[in-house]
Amino acid sequence: MRFGEETTSEGVTERLFTVGDVPGVVWAAAGAAGPRPLVLIGHGGGAHKTAPAVTARARRYVTRLGVAVAAIDAPGWGGRQVPVSYEPFNAEIEELTAAGKPLLDVYARRGAVIADLAVPEWQATIDALTALDWIGSGPLGYFGVSLGSSIGVPLVAAEPRIGAAVLGLMGHETLAAHAARITVPVQVLLQWDDVIVPRDYGLALFDAIGSAEKTLHVNPGGHGATPEFEIEDSERFFARHLLA
Amino acid sequence: MRFGEETTSEGVTERLFTVGDVPGVVWAAAGAAGPRPLVLIGHGGGAHKTAPAVTARARRYVTRLGVAVAAIDAPGWGGRQVPVSYEPFNAEIEELTAAGKPLLDVYARRGAVIADLAVPEWQATIDALTALDWIGSGPLGYFGVSLGSSIGVPLVAAEPRIGAAVLGLMGHETLAAHAARITVPVQVLLQWDDVIVPRDYGLALFDAIGSAEKTLHVNPGGHGATPEFEIEDSERFFARHLLA
Repeated sequence: MRFGEETTSEGVTERLFTVGDVPGVVWAAAGAAGPRPLVLIGHGGGAHKTAPAVTARARRYVTRLGVAVAAIDAPGWGGRQVPVSYEPFNAEIEELTAAGKPLLDVYARRGAVIADLAVPEWQATIDALTALDWIGSGPLGYFGVSLGSSIGVPLVAAEPRIGAAVLGLMGHETLAAHAARITVPVQVLLQWDDVIVPRDYGLALFDAIGSAEKTLHVNPGGHGATPEFEIEDSERFFARHLLA
Repeated sequence: MRFGEETTSEGVTERLFTVGDVPGVVWAAAGAAGPRPLVLIGHGGGAHKTAPAVTARARRYVTRLGVAVAAIDAPGWGGRQVPVSYEPFNAEIEELTAAGKPLLDVYARRGAVIADLAVPEWQATIDALTALDWIGSGPLGYFGVSLGSSIGVPLVAAEPRIGAAVLGLMGHETLAAHAARITVPVQVLLQWDDVIVPRDYGLALFDAIGSAEKTLHVNPGGHGATPEFEIEDSERFFARHLLA
């Protein structure tokens, strides 16, 4: 793990880093010393590790929960080279978009390819972050919706160090087997009028999750219209499971 | 409005009252003076105005939100005489229960009859409570699930003084027209494995609600298995809409 630029503002220190060739960022209270819970944020399809919505959420979690927060760029996002294996999917996405046809199926098939690359990257990042004396060995949470759940559902299923997760804005049979292996508390987000992820697909993801404690929050509006109060709801969810 | 027994414990004063022949109870901080928001609680089918779950919720709202809370017995509950108009429905419920058959349809048809009696009783109770100088003219919230929503959905639709409501564990075409007339922020509860209210009926109620801000919380388990953390979620919902 190599650290890069470090900046502190409003009591929160943001440190850029790389693990192998994966660029990441970790936020914590300025002068943070000693172990603390860590929340991982998986960015969405239009975003990257320091997109405004990711940074704003990270700073809120640091300030209100006293946790550390980390994000990495998914393979092909945030200036990372687009893997050759995406090319047929990206061509298909272009055609379907031009034809105004549904995109969930190709997003999901591409998502499975992305997750195969991204899950080991997250696991190496967790190895590196949990070795830091100002983070330590957890507990760990994960927040990621849309692309962040295409990666997050397989990640949470595969990674026993993650003890609680907020997932959603995604759902497809390619995720069902992974979802069934998830046993930790999960909060799932679904947008009732989402044209990218029709409601039945989002409900099916919730239904497939194996956890005894799982709670689904449904709100009106499209894929990008999750209300602001769900950020506060996710804080309380992580507070219940990471700070208790 | 006639007040009866008054008891104070752990900083919360509980006052029994009647409005006409409707028995009610109102909770507020001991020594409460001056106006404060009021949350109305509609009890469930197995309960009454001072059932343990109602009293515990009321004391939490008083203590944590600083609001007043009131509950009344629905017609036929809490020792109130069972209206003759319920008799055919109650006979049908007995037969269906003995036969192990679904009850939602008859509950919903009886619920419409209950609501026709209960809504004006709630409105007279609101008139009386909002005239008290230690409550004043609102804002008002309503919490009621199951039977509390068979009454609550028509009540919130009909009563402009109610500015926010938590509803759910119910859903039927008999409620759809009322639900469509609701425009205030609503939080809806649904139990994913509810055999009394199948999930499609609960989802249909959420879908039918006319409010721009409506949020659905779905949890695993049966009709009576709503997790404890939903009480805290309802507190934050009322805090957002009644204390802001």
